[in-house]
Amino acid sequence: MTEMLPSYVQGEWWTPGADASTDATQQPPTAVRDASTGEIVTHVSTAGLDLAGALEYARTVGQASLRELTFHQRAVLLKQFALALTERKAELYELSARTGATKQDSWVDIDGGIGVLFSYSSKGRRELPNTKVYVDGPIEQLSKDGSFLGRHIYTSLPGVAVQINAFNFPVWGSLEKFAPAFLAGVPSVVKPATPTGYLAEAFVRILVESGLLPDGSLQLVSGSVPDLFDHLRLGDLVAFTGSASTAERLRSHESVQTGGVRFTSETDSINASVLGPDAVAGTPEFDAYVRQLVVEMTTKAGQKCTAIRRAVVPSGSIDDVVDAVRERIASRTVVGDPRDEATTMGPLASVEQRDEVLRQVGRLVDAGGRVVVGSTDAPGGMNPDGAFVAPVLLRFDDASTEAVNEVEAFGPVSSVIGYESLADAAAIVARGGGSLVTSIATHDPAVAAELTTRIAAYNGRVLLLDRDDARSSTGHGSPLPQLVHGGPGRAGGGEELGGIRAVLHHMQRTAVQGSPEMLTALTGIWHPGASARPYATTGDEHPFRKSLAELAIGDQVVSDARTVTLEDIETFAAFTGDTFYAHMDEEAAAANPFFPGRVAHGYLLVSWAAGLFVDPAPGPVLANSGLENLRFMTPVSPGDEIRVELTAKQITPRETDEYGEVRWDAVLRNQRDEVVAQYDVLTLVAKERVPAAV
Amino acid sequence: MTEMLPSYVQGEWWTPGADASTDATQQPPTAVRDASTGEIVTHVSTAGLDLAGALEYARTVGQASLRELTFHQRAVLLKQFALALTERKAELYELSARTGATKQDSWVDIDGGIGVLFSYSSKGRRELPNTKVYVDGPIEQLSKDGSFLGRHIYTSLPGVAVQINAFNFPVWGSLEKFAPAFLAGVPSVVKPATPTGYLAEAFVRILVESGLLPDGSLQLVSGSVPDLFDHLRLGDLVAFTGSASTAERLRSHESVQTGGVRFTSETDSINASVLGPDAVAGTPEFDAYVRQLVVEMTTKAGQKCTAIRRAVVPSGSIDDVVDAVRERIASRTVVGDPRDEATTMGPLASVEQRDEVLRQVGRLVDAGGRVVVGSTDAPGGMNPDGAFVAPVLLRFDDASTEAVNEVEAFGPVSSVIGYESLADAAAIVARGGGSLVTSIATHDPAVAAELTTRIAAYNGRVLLLDRDDARSSTGHGSPLPQLVHGGPGRAGGGEELGGIRAVLHHMQRTAVQGSPEMLTALTGIWHPGASARPYATTGDEHPFRKSLAELAIGDQVVSDARTVTLEDIETFAAFTGDTFYAHMDEEAAAANPFFPGRVAHGYLLVSWAAGLFVDPAPGPVLANSGLENLRFMTPVSPGDEIRVELTAKQITPRETDEYGEVRWDAVLRNQRDEVVAQYDVLTLVAKERVPAAV
Repeated sequence: MTEMLPSYVQGEWWTPGADASTDATQQPPTAVRDASTGEIVTHVSTAGLDLAGALEYARTVGQASLRELTFHQRAVLLKQFALALTERKAELYELSARTGATKQDSWVDIDGGIGVLFSYSSKGRRELPNTKVYVDGPIEQLSKDGSFLGRHIYTSLPGVAVQINAFNFPVWGSLEKFAPAFLAGVPSVVKPATPTGYLAEAFVRILVESGLLPDGSLQLVSGSVPDLFDHLRLGDLVAFTGSASTAERLRSHESVQTGGVRFTSETDSINASVLGPDAVAGTPEFDAYVRQLVVEMTTKAGQKCTAIRRAVVPSGSIDDVVDAVRERIASRTVVGDPRDEATTMGPLASVEQRDEVLRQVGRLVDAGGRVVVGSTDAPGGMNPDGAFVAPVLLRFDDASTEAVNEVEAFGPVSSVIGYESLADAAAIVARGGGSLVTSIATHDPAVAAELTTRIAAYNGRVLLLDRDDARSSTGHGSPLPQLVHGGPGRAGGGEELGGIRAVLHHMQRTAVQGSPEMLTALTGIWHPGASARPYATTGDEHPFRKSLAELAIGDQVVSDARTVTLEDIETFAAFTGDTFYAHMDEEAAAANPFFPGRVAHGYLLVSWAAGLFVDPAPGPVLANSGLENLRFMTPVSPGDEIRVELTAKQITPRETDEYGEVRWDAVLRNQRDEVVAQYDVLTLVAKERVPAAV
Repeated sequence: MTEMLPSYVQGEWWTPGADASTDATQQPPTAVRDASTGEIVTHVSTAGLDLAGALEYARTVGQASLRELTFHQRAVLLKQFALALTERKAELYELSARTGATKQDSWVDIDGGIGVLFSYSSKGRRELPNTKVYVDGPIEQLSKDGSFLGRHIYTSLPGVAVQINAFNFPVWGSLEKFAPAFLAGVPSVVKPATPTGYLAEAFVRILVESGLLPDGSLQLVSGSVPDLFDHLRLGDLVAFTGSASTAERLRSHESVQTGGVRFTSETDSINASVLGPDAVAGTPEFDAYVRQLVVEMTTKAGQKCTAIRRAVVPSGSIDDVVDAVRERIASRTVVGDPRDEATTMGPLASVEQRDEVLRQVGRLVDAGGRVVVGSTDAPGGMNPDGAFVAPVLLRFDDASTEAVNEVEAFGPVSSVIGYESLADAAAIVARGGGSLVTSIATHDPAVAAELTTRIAAYNGRVLLLDRDDARSSTGHGSPLPQLVHGGPGRAGGGEELGGIRAVLHHMQRTAVQGSPEMLTALTGIWHPGASARPYATTGDEHPFRKSLAELAIGDQVVSDARTVTLEDIETFAAFTGDTFYAHMDEEAAAANPFFPGRVAHGYLLVSWAAGLFVDPAPGPVLANSGLENLRFMTPVSPGDEIRVELTAKQITPRETDEYGEVRWDAVLRNQRDEVVAQYDVLTLVAKERVPAAV
């Protein structure tokens, strides 16, 4: 570790000069200490840092290099970042121990952060197109003749994503913001919290040294940035994690209030865990509830925005819960230096944090909380310069006490509150003023459904815990890349993660109106009404003869007509076994509100359509991989004709395969030109022509 | 019209007492005048109004009555509201003329507003489930064994939606906010702008008199509400339309900044319309551009948040545009009292508005703008007490002049600015600091695509105008219920409309984790892994024998196995004409990267699956209406067996039909239990059993 922690800005490592005695806040460099021993790890300062230059570098160089890449190309890079970090994660684990994190805590932070990169890489390739513009929702018909359509697109914000992180998860907290920004094509400036910023510096260093980072896509500012918001403008966004009071101060800045800078915040909240009335002592749900509560109190020494601060339990079960928690902590929890093998709970991140937590416990006690498990005395035998505290469970007799719903001790501290009815339990949860997460332990689906619908609007996430998922549950306190993380009100009002949802938070949704031709040109997706090239008319090859590289949207097959006879329907019924009366019984079919009499099977029509559009010889089209949005619109009677128009609609090469996906627009019409059925056909198509020898 | 305009609160009409000489702002009642004649129409005051009571009434009575209804039931009511207003719209047109609106202007406001109700009614029934909880996105697998899943749900916000409207569209502006709130199950308190509030009062009165409104679902506050935000709390939301400065003041309130009250705003912005370099004089795009510009200047006398304030044209085309606009206004625009048949443009809404517009034109002139069409002199022959102004076009030689990109004259006023390149045009658009809409007139798809991707992030909507859609285009200035309305930065940063998107803005998105059983109970959608009832095992009837009322999610068909032979494949190929080599040519098929050799057609498998699960006799299942999300996972070779599990997944009764939709989960497996294909089957099912006689 260096004497002074570097920043990485404008493509270079930057360290304040030795003579830089004050930073931008006019403060001398901050000494950062080992959480267990108090030894100085490094110093942090931004004295002399050109923050405005870093932001502009992101908006220019960073935007330009990311704009070169499609969603899939960015997604592939995310996976490579994850692999680069995996290879050197031992370095990160070693530093992480200095922050007070046990191996298990470090796993959540480091492997959890790497996991976010893997997850976004995978989702980016599965759920986003291989382009730069994301299309949202269906085509909206805005004129009867189809000449004027509406569509919604998302385009990358043109600015910089500034990510202000909390001290508790220096790796995960940075990467869970960086991954969706990167995928969206928006360059990041990461600003870690000072007490653990050296761990963030370490992962950024690994990424820089990997040589994989597009220029300007990731910068790191180690230290405080008091004038940050003065340099922000429309097109930039800030994702903040930290205290509600800091969020309030930042949000009130003019650049957010009137300047159009997006600001999302995720603040620690007074999360609850509800024990269902059915989950009495002796049930698997009771055991799972207590186990989870103790995990949340002790993991990361309770320094988690998502930790359970309020255990909301039936009044009659309070004693059972307290006893079980006491027993479990006594038999399982060993507080100590995380480098000691026996330790299961490390110190808080700093002695300042320790003092703050003890102060908040004092407020809870003053408000009527009784300490029923643990104590606020320093745990015995610890280094006095370390930030050690013991797990503490308080009990409140009056559930409406303001403090228990409002005061947060950001450490291994929870409070037990009793409730009388489900409505009462829901009201207690709501009294938190908006939470990141509430969990409910119950095996009664009716209890789960009623409580969840009552409390969902006050929570970003709800976890339902019972005997069926107790073993596989990822836990109350773990945000997952697939699920939104954030919550209303006190929890900050923001949303992060949630798969592609977080990518879209870095983009602007815009409604676009225009002709089919123009929307096709803009989106790269063929829109009905846009020009198409029927191969037989243009003298071109059948589209199935074209490789992915040769195929163009609008390439089309217009088939001949084929007449459906009663014999065909009977043949198909006999072959498939589908003798549904609408196909087989004239009188019964005619009595059906939708059919004039016996009609062809929908699957007969779709199967015939394939017969009409397929080019059978080996070629670049490798397989029919699926079909979407099939609707049968007009019944087909014996004697009717059908024909099909198949048009290349969207072409999605895969970055790491020799083929890609082609989506075809299929429309079946009858002899009266009525639409019989429409759907999308999905195929896998080789990037290059298959050699003739095959 | 009454002497004092009533409010509708807590289920009753309420009028300030005659002795109520001041309102909550300590102002005497405001006199509202006819825009053309200056005659007093009514007075407005909130003196003595119990605003806190009205809000609490919404949160209790309003929430309770809306919570009784499903999305579809609310949607049906929206249509009935629309019909009630249609029946009495002559009353609204008569009042609308007093606000200065021509027949055409009134059509936009009144029929436009009614159209929003129809549109939301239709979208609500087509795009939302017939339940109270909306499920967002796919199932997320959170454990390998499938026992722990994630899902996102939206639930109604538990509070009140306060809608603060602008004076220019008293009917449309209210209804476009009310419709999505109502559909979301959130009660509304509507606060119209004072100058035209009597027209909002009139439509609310029609709805109240229709007897259709659920208790507490709609309240009206006529007059100012200075302490509104002091009464708001987490779970409430405010949708504001009006000036950027008022939005700024409201947004800064503590209840928004830290109290968790959602605040969205839509403010007038300096919208642009770009003439493409190809659209020179003589082209259809040039003509369409000029026509649209004049329409936007004169409709509603230019009092539209979406009006074109900046005509951004190639430098070489400025003179042509100015001449064409001058000619068109001279030949087409007649300013006058809208009750006069000849009038094509009415007065502004009030003389205060007129004076304000002239003041802003003065600022534009001071900044270098030259008036090139029209004049700021009062139009001749008008009632001096009326708020008449003439259309004015200014010309700026320096595109970087701050005023032209920042000053808004909210009347029939636009400015022409020249550009040199597409990058230059895009930069000018962006200089507006965020707009509701920009239109682009071009017939060149490359120009449309480049400009749109450059400017989209600065706009809520982009309209592409060319010869193909000029006749069918709904116009630059018209927000549509299908498309989002709102824009970043200066435009307020909010989003309204956009179909179901605006409904979801009134709901909270929450991630829910749990076992398949629990997610099934919560969402009413069967999740794979939840318990199911195979009818043959339970001794129940085949699910196809059950009416919609009898069927339950989890009802299941587990079929026998059926072996696929080479003869079957050849029979199917011959019957359908689908002789794709993967089915017909062993050697070529084996060379394909996905197939071990000849395989069965995907459509054969799906057709056979129907044969395996269908119950053929007439019954409640009326038709197979479609199929979704079909994926072929494992190829099926001759000799393989397939069997199908069909499980009732979601049941959606239609409110106004004798049938509803049932979505079935279909999974095909082979003899090794591998999943061969999976998809959703859509069927229409009668609510009651079909009488035996049919």
